[in-house]
Parts: sequence; C-alpha cells; structure tokens
Amino acid sequence: MSNQRLEKQVRFILEIDKLKHIMRQNYLADGTRKENDAEHSWHLAVMVVLLAEHSSYKNLDISKVIKMVLIHDLVELYVGDTYCYDVKANIGKYEREKESAKKVFGLLPSDQAKEFTALWEEFEERKTPEANFSAGMDRFQPLLLNYTSNGKSWIEHDIPQSKVLERAKPIKESSAIIGDYMDSLIKDAADRGYLK
Amino acid sequence: MSNQRLEKQVRFILEIDKLKHIMRQNYLADGTRKENDAEHSWHLAVMVVLLAEHSSYKNLDISKVIKMVLIHDLVELYVGDTYCYDVKANIGKYEREKESAKKVFGLLPSDQAKEFTALWEEFEERKTPEANFSAGMDRFQPLLLNYTSNGKSWIEHDIPQSKVLERAKPIKESSAIIGDYMDSLIKDAADRGYLK
Repeated sequence: MSNQRLEKQVRFILEIDKLKHIMRQNYLADGTRKENDAEHSWHLAVMVVLLAEHSSYKNLDISKVIKMVLIHDLVELYVGDTYCYDVKANIGKYEREKESAKKVFGLLPSDQAKEFTALWEEFEERKTPEANFSAGMDRFQPLLLNYTSNGKSWIEHDIPQSKVLERAKPIKESSAIIGDYMDSLIKDAADRGYLK
Repeated sequence: MSNQRLEKQVRFILEIDKLKHIMRQNYLADGTRKENDAEHSWHLAVMVVLLAEHSSYKNLDISKVIKMVLIHDLVELYVGDTYCYDVKANIGKYEREKESAKKVFGLLPSDQAKEFTALWEEFEERKTPEANFSAGMDRFQPLLLNYTSNGKSWIEHDIPQSKVLERAKPIKESSAIIGDYMDSLIKDAADRGYLK
C-alpha cells in the first residue's frame, strides 16, 4: 500500500459510502420508504443519459452532466438533505454545504479535489447549460417519484400546487417538452388531491 | 402528455426505481446493513471516474465506462442479485438476465433500447477495454466494502481466501497498481481472520 494517491482516492471512496445513509423527503415510486441520496444520484445519472436529447441547450457536454449529478449531493454528507420547501432550514444552506465540500473533496488528491469542487460550484451557480440541465433533472426526478407514490410526501408536508410549480421552473427551462409533461403531471396531482 | 417517446422513457425511469429494492450480499462500509444495487451502481460510477487514471487500458472511453456501470445491474430487476460465491445459483444466470434485459430495455424507445442492450452485452462479454475495466471495478467496490466492514459478509458465508483471490483476478487485469493494493487488502483480511 505504498501508493499515496490511490490511498487518498480509496479514503474518499469509503467516506462517500455514507451518502447511502442520507435520507431525502421523497418516497420511492412504490411509496414503501424514503429514498437516500446515493439512490437519487444514480437514478438522476441514468435519467440525464436518456433525456439529454430533450435539452433546450445545444451541444450539451453530457459526460460533464453525468459527473455533475453523480457528485452533486456529496456536500450533504455532513449536513444532511435540506428539504426544498422548508424555508427556515434553507437559511445558510450554501455556507454549510461549502464547508462540507471542503471536507469531503479535500480527501482527494489535489487535482481531483479541484475538479470535483469546480463541478459542484458550477452546479450550484447554475450559469452553464450543463448546470442548468442538471438542476432541471434534479427537480424532475423527485417530482416523478412524488407523483407516482400518490403524492405521499407532498400530502405529509401539506405542499400547495403553487410551490411545486415554482420549484419546477428549472425543468421548463431545461426542456420545453419535459416542461409540458411536468405541467400535466402537476395539474393531475392537484386534481387527485395530492397538492393543496 | 402527447409525446410517446418521452412517455416510454418515463415508464423506464419509473420501472428501474425497483433497483433500489434489489439487495446485494455485501454490507455498507460501516456494516449496519446490506447494500442495494442502485447504491452500488452509483458508488461504482464515482469510482470509475476517479480510478480510470490507473487503468491498464490506454484510451479508455470513460464516458462509455460510466454508462456501462450505471446500467450493468438493471438485468437483476426481475431475477435479483446472484451471489458470486454461490456456484449453484450461478447456473443459468446469463440466460435469466438476458430475459430481464429484454424486458427492461424493451420499455425504451427502440434506439435507446438497442444502445443499452449493447452496453450490457459488451459488459457481459468482457472483450473490450471498457468492459474489462468496468468488471474490475465492479469487483473492487464490494471488496473494499467487505474489508472495511470487518469481513462481515465473508465471515457470514464462510468464504476462503482462495475464492476471493480468484474472483479478484479482473481487478489485477484492470490495473496493476489497484491489483497490488487489493493483494495487500486480501492478505490483511486473511491475517485478521475475515477469510478462511
């Protein structure tokens, strides 16, 4: 075990195993239990591969999008998932996650630490096509699961339709066709009483 | 919801949510519970991004490797995970998984069904650098978790060192440096009594 670079990478790989314990507010599609961040990140990565063709952005670097969504939630390792509809909990979220980013990415060899930190910052800033598409799909994935699990998490948290529509804006910006699809899902969710 | 192509993609996306229920034999690094296939696939995807630099294969198409590992276990959706050290359970594994592949990838629009089926077949055949590297990392990931969880799964199944060494061969072929690292882990695991 003389290779320091590989040892650093393995330490990081073992550290991020904890993402499998970070629970989200949305349920799996069958409503049996909530989803964790590792499962969400995997699901999202497969989704971006399949749905990139519907993107509003031309010449999307899909390889970058996949990497971005694979690591976008690692900053939740030490601070947990912040529920998107909890206004109070979201105060100081970026600063807390920035600290987490330093801690987790800092385990890597410095070049890879820089690469992953830059990918996460790009995702957070939402200024590039790759970050915008990732953000849209990051909202579409739980929306699909919330709808399919009969609105279980929305009902539990008493979420109004207006808030889901507001939260879903990046989906529309990412893709007109997915935006239309999403509109019909949200309308149907409201009709079924999943949303206030 | 008039776009048939998107509807097929969404149906597939919701179907593969079930991968989060397919349990593996290995435990998480902290030993608290077993891992599921979705978590494993995510972990593996991050690993290949980080460790591709150690690959024995020149000009590895890393984007293809990532896609391959993201979908490689979808064939377990209807047949479950087959424990690698269970000789009897492995009889007919490929045929069962081939049927599953038809079923799950068949939900996609035909071009994407073809792409994903071809990726899975390439992974199974292990003839290309991408497939060989994926196979190596697919074995290195549970080995790391088994070692870190104090050999919990190995001890439960009474696994001898010789079998772990045999199973780990593709790791050595994938990367000399990771192969050396793995050798020292397996030796240490045997010294600690994790392996027969």
